[in-house]
Amino acid sequence: MLYLIGLGLSYTTDITVRGLEAIKKCDRIYLEHYTSILMAASLEELEQFYGKPVTLADRELVESGCEEILRDADKQDVAFLVVGDPFGATTHTDLVLRAKRQGLPVEVIHNASVMNAVGSCGLQLYTFGQTVSMVFFTDSWRPDSWYNKIWENRKIGLHTLVLLDIKVKEQSIENMARGRLIYEPPRYMSISQCCEQLLEIEETRGTKAYTPETPVVAISRLGSATQEFKSGTIEELSRYDAGEPLHSLVILGRQCHELELEYLLDFASDREAFKQAVIKDQEYFKPAPWVPPAEEDDE
Amino acid sequence: MLYLIGLGLSYTTDITVRGLEAIKKCDRIYLEHYTSILMAASLEELEQFYGKPVTLADRELVESGCEEILRDADKQDVAFLVVGDPFGATTHTDLVLRAKRQGLPVEVIHNASVMNAVGSCGLQLYTFGQTVSMVFFTDSWRPDSWYNKIWENRKIGLHTLVLLDIKVKEQSIENMARGRLIYEPPRYMSISQCCEQLLEIEETRGTKAYTPETPVVAISRLGSATQEFKSGTIEELSRYDAGEPLHSLVILGRQCHELELEYLLDFASDREAFKQAVIKDQEYFKPAPWVPPAEEDDE
Repeated sequence: MLYLIGLGLSYTTDITVRGLEAIKKCDRIYLEHYTSILMAASLEELEQFYGKPVTLADRELVESGCEEILRDADKQDVAFLVVGDPFGATTHTDLVLRAKRQGLPVEVIHNASVMNAVGSCGLQLYTFGQTVSMVFFTDSWRPDSWYNKIWENRKIGLHTLVLLDIKVKEQSIENMARGRLIYEPPRYMSISQCCEQLLEIEETRGTKAYTPETPVVAISRLGSATQEFKSGTIEELSRYDAGEPLHSLVILGRQCHELELEYLLDFASDREAFKQAVIKDQEYFKPAPWVPPAEEDDE
Repeated sequence: MLYLIGLGLSYTTDITVRGLEAIKKCDRIYLEHYTSILMAASLEELEQFYGKPVTLADRELVESGCEEILRDADKQDVAFLVVGDPFGATTHTDLVLRAKRQGLPVEVIHNASVMNAVGSCGLQLYTFGQTVSMVFFTDSWRPDSWYNKIWENRKIGLHTLVLLDIKVKEQSIENMARGRLIYEPPRYMSISQCCEQLLEIEETRGTKAYTPETPVVAISRLGSATQEFKSGTIEELSRYDAGEPLHSLVILGRQCHELELEYLLDFASDREAFKQAVIKDQEYFKPAPWVPPAEEDDE
C-alpha cells in the first residue's frame, strides 16, 4: 500500500491518529521536502516521534524518481508524507496516477493545509477565488501572471490567497551551469517583499487590479504557537516585519461581511483606518449595474 | 482555554494527535452537530475513543447559547469539536469573537475539510472559485443565488465546489408553527437531486452559465473507506445513484489541465465521451479575445 499522508501545518502532533497508525506499519517513509516545510518540527523530531527513519524526498526524487518511492508498494507499506494535505501540489496527483497505472493500492490520509486553515483569519472560505503564487523576482525574471488572476477574482468580489515563494535546496545559476550539487541556504519570502512586488507590478501596469490602499491580511506561521495575523493596506504591509516564516497573504475582495470585517479589525494597527480602507476598496470594486441576461448573452 | 478542534472527514481516528491530547485535558466537550456529520463514527464511538462524555451542540445551542459553551473557559478547558475544520462555517468565527471579547484564551486545532480534501478528485485547488451551497428546493422556495456565482466562476475558467444540503434536527413547518419540538429524520441531498436542480434553474434562466453537457465530478463519502468519485455531464449524473451520503459536486471550469483531465477520466463511465464533453465545454467558455487594458478600464 502507498499511503499519502498529510502532516498538517506545524507540530509533529499535527498528524492524524490514523496517519500515525499508518506510519507505524510502513516499511519505508518519505517526506516531501520542497513545496513546504513543517514549522515546529525537525526531521530528527519526526523520526523520534514515529520511531522510524524518514527519507527526505526532494523535487528530483519525486518528479523523476517515482520508481524509488513506488518500489514494492504492492508487497510493502510505503508512506509519502506531505506538509499540509497531500493534494496541495500537482506532483502528488502525478504520483497517485503512476501508482494507479501500476495497479498499486493507494490510501490518502488528509490533513489541514493553508488552503482551508486560512479561514482562521476570519474571512469565509466560500468567498475565496483562485489562488496565486508569488515568486521571488530576479533582475531578469519578474513573472506577473498572478496579476490578472487577482483582478479576475476582485472583479467578482472574491478574496485572493497569495502563496509566498519558498526556495529549498535550490542551486545558484552558476552551480547549476557547472553541474555542482551545491545548494543555496533556504529562503522564504517575507510579507513586505510580497507587498513590494505587488506594488511594483501595479505601478508598471497601472490598470488598478488593486491599489496601494487595497486591504490585505498577512498570515504568519499559520497553525503554530506563534501564529500571527496582520490587517492593513498593501502599502502599510510593505513596511511590516512579520518575523519568521512561513507567510501567506490574502488580498480582500468586495464580498466581506460585517462579521468578517469585525474579526479583521482586531488585527489592524489602526482599526478605523483599516475599516475606511475596506469601505473605499469595496466602493471601487462594487458590482456593475445589473444587465438583463438577454443583453449579456450577446457579449 | 477554549479549544476549537477539527475532527476531519470520517473516522474517529481522523482527529490529530494534538487534538486528541487537548480533548484528554478538557472538562467539557461539545460536538457541533448541524453543519456536517462524521461519516464513519457515531457519538458513542467518539465518547469511547476519547474516554469522555460528549454533548451534542445543535444550531440553537451554538448560535443562541454560546454562554453555556464559554462558561468558565477562563478556569477550565473546554473543547468545541467540529467535523472537518473549525473555520468552515460562520457561526464558529462568531464563537471565537465572543470568546475574545470576554478575554478567554482560544486555541484552534485544524484538520482537513471538504474545502481542501476535494483536491483528491484530481482538480487543482488553485483553480477553484467561490464555493456555493445547494439547498433542498420546496414547492415555494427554490433559491438560485448560486447560479450567478457558478457563472462568474466559469467566466474566468474556475471550478465550482457545490456543497449539498443536509438537514439535521429540522422541524416540519407544522411542528414549528405549533411549537412542538419534534424533529424530522435527517436528510442528505443526493448527487442526482443536485444535478436536477442545476438543470431546472438553467432551463428557467436559459442564460447558459452551464449546459446539461457541462462536465462535473461527484464526490461521495470523501475521506471514508467507501469514498467514490464519478465524472460525467450534469445530465448524466442527474441519473446517477451515488449511494450513501455525504456528497459534494464539482462543476468544471475551463482551467483543466491535461494531468487533471487524465485523473478525471478514470472516474468516467465513458472516457472518450467525457473527454469530448470537457473539450466542448472549454471551447464554449474559452476566454474572450484579449482587450487592451485601456479599453477595459472604460467598462
